[in-house]
Amino acid sequence: MNPESFFSKDIKPALQNEPPGEWMPVIPQGCIRLSSGYPDPGLVPVEELKNSVVKLLKEEKDLPLHYIGSKKADGLKGTLQHLMKERRMEIGSDELLITSGACQAIDLIARVLIDDETVVAVESPTYMEALEIFQNYTNRFMTIEIDGNGLRTDLLEEELKERREHGEKLPKVVYTIPTFQNPTGTTMSAERREHLMKLADEYNFLVMEDDAYGEVYFNQDTRPLKSMKRGNDPRVLYIGSLSKVVAPGLRIGWVAADKEFIQTLSWFKKDLDHPFSQASVSQLLHDLEWKEHYSALRKVYREKCSLLLSQLEKHMPESVSWYVPQGGYFVWVQVPGTDTSKLLEKAAAEGVSYVPGKYFFLNQEEGLEYLRLSFSYEGESGIVDGVERLARVIRQQMK
Amino acid sequence: MNPESFFSKDIKPALQNEPPGEWMPVIPQGCIRLSSGYPDPGLVPVEELKNSVVKLLKEEKDLPLHYIGSKKADGLKGTLQHLMKERRMEIGSDELLITSGACQAIDLIARVLIDDETVVAVESPTYMEALEIFQNYTNRFMTIEIDGNGLRTDLLEEELKERREHGEKLPKVVYTIPTFQNPTGTTMSAERREHLMKLADEYNFLVMEDDAYGEVYFNQDTRPLKSMKRGNDPRVLYIGSLSKVVAPGLRIGWVAADKEFIQTLSWFKKDLDHPFSQASVSQLLHDLEWKEHYSALRKVYREKCSLLLSQLEKHMPESVSWYVPQGGYFVWVQVPGTDTSKLLEKAAAEGVSYVPGKYFFLNQEEGLEYLRLSFSYEGESGIVDGVERLARVIRQQMK
Repeated sequence: MNPESFFSKDIKPALQNEPPGEWMPVIPQGCIRLSSGYPDPGLVPVEELKNSVVKLLKEEKDLPLHYIGSKKADGLKGTLQHLMKERRMEIGSDELLITSGACQAIDLIARVLIDDETVVAVESPTYMEALEIFQNYTNRFMTIEIDGNGLRTDLLEEELKERREHGEKLPKVVYTIPTFQNPTGTTMSAERREHLMKLADEYNFLVMEDDAYGEVYFNQDTRPLKSMKRGNDPRVLYIGSLSKVVAPGLRIGWVAADKEFIQTLSWFKKDLDHPFSQASVSQLLHDLEWKEHYSALRKVYREKCSLLLSQLEKHMPESVSWYVPQGGYFVWVQVPGTDTSKLLEKAAAEGVSYVPGKYFFLNQEEGLEYLRLSFSYEGESGIVDGVERLARVIRQQMK
Repeated sequence: MNPESFFSKDIKPALQNEPPGEWMPVIPQGCIRLSSGYPDPGLVPVEELKNSVVKLLKEEKDLPLHYIGSKKADGLKGTLQHLMKERRMEIGSDELLITSGACQAIDLIARVLIDDETVVAVESPTYMEALEIFQNYTNRFMTIEIDGNGLRTDLLEEELKERREHGEKLPKVVYTIPTFQNPTGTTMSAERREHLMKLADEYNFLVMEDDAYGEVYFNQDTRPLKSMKRGNDPRVLYIGSLSKVVAPGLRIGWVAADKEFIQTLSWFKKDLDHPFSQASVSQLLHDLEWKEHYSALRKVYREKCSLLLSQLEKHMPESVSWYVPQGGYFVWVQVPGTDTSKLLEKAAAEGVSYVPGKYFFLNQEEGLEYLRLSFSYEGESGIVDGVERLARVIRQQMK
């Protein structure tokens, strides 16, 4: 019996790609993990969650452990609507679907929108998991450069114009992480945001706004694309996540979109609801006083980012450069003339890890000179020692 | 902007079907729920889960709240392997994938195997959620009757022969719930199990064995199909679930299959792992002494089933009939000459609910006279009063 002979014809093109997860570096024991986009362990509300679960199960007993019936699980939606309202998004309860993290949100949207004829426009570089997901559905992409002010909407417009003139297929959807982008840490300027949404109307495409990092600002909130047209732009499918502000292991993300999209996403969401997880998080957000939690974590990440940047300044060779982020988890570093995927083994041997840049590009060749550093997970000494070790490896390489 | 105009061509045929969840009855407050396939509230280990979560977070702290890194979350796989071994299945760790309940397992398998040209063979009647899922991928089905000894493999063979003779497409996969079937409660006999697997070899199809109820036997364990060929028949994709023996709200299911299938299922599983839920359940199964828990619950369900059956005997008109199950959650009732979907409103007004039979059939006309009762959720008085009320409504209808 040959398993492959039973595969659906629809998945066969996807299986030509690199398997998912190839980007994940093998990290030796004790290695400093500048690769991990994990929250700071000290900011994960372990004690609070414990207390919330105890409270939840005392109050609701078996209810959050059935398929449906927990008021607290149901209440999470209202809390998420409230969180969005604080950021000027006005979302109705039939315009919101809770998912298992942002990844499931991206996958469900892809399932509903993308077939093998669909053109998807993505930032270059962009979130590697999103690339993996989209490539499960299509191999037709438009890649648009990112710079210090986010997506180059001028290049997007050029490409759209050209495609229209040549009668080529236009993209159905643009996937963007406009705020504190993964991996570059850059943020799309207000002008470009306006421009992007004008193009969306003109060329009739949708915008998937992945806002996983939006709440992790250092000084100032950035208005989400979703909030632009009277607080609820119908062209934007907004993706939220609690992974970076509460904890990824609880798997809470969501989509906010036109209710017809939401109905259709629900149609294909076949893991059902996750009442225990949703009710626990609902209770936690209630008990935690999330506003204080969020401001505390903004301060921590601001300081850690600032430390990482100062260490880069101190240790890196002149030719190495990076963007200065205003929020998020990442610093994107260019190491001219160096293949960072080859360098990784040496770095790991020296006790520091990162994610090689190539995984964030559809055309991996374009990313060889880059690497992504996370300041989120490691503590002060990890950041200090990690950058020092990395700089040492880079200097040796450059010799 | 018209959302529908952005939908993938691949989902459009599915959207012609009835939306998922139509089967779920509207249940008035205070209604006796003989419709709910939920575990008995008294068997849901609320206190134990609370203690396990407290213990887990004390021991592992933030680890089960990240993407990966929790030994306990990782340990769940070993526990599931062990549970399977007790039922004579020998499954390697690369042959097992944890999913969010059986539903996600079915959906992932469908995603990997089924395209719009695939013929899927299903029992008739069968689990309505599985029908909903399969119909998202194909509209080509073979339906094979169920009787008191499970799937009529003689009819399956006839149909296969006929298709082969006429050069018609053969099924790629047979979906079966061989043990304590949902909705009929019947169990496939040992002879038919042998016959089914012989046909699978002869006609080169796979078997999806949904064993969600296998552990809920009243007197005697039934050997899963998966266990037949030296404890691991490669033609069987086995689906397990903790929903019926621990709690559905924790969303723990799994697939055991050839490792090439498992790799490919993982490829398309895009909600990532659920470390908090998995680690909590892992800790719970460890603390709970699951063997004792399982035998205690078998006794409870045996007694509740027996009570329901005696009430049916006592109150139902002569012409009403049902199968006597040896395990599981359900009793399948035939009410000749009555459209049970129309009767439901009256029953609900009298304070009792059930699931109308038609939702368990692809051709809903075939199920009009049937209804599914659950003895799992309600207590003694609910079962007694519920059947009495239902019998009253049925007698009035028959007048």
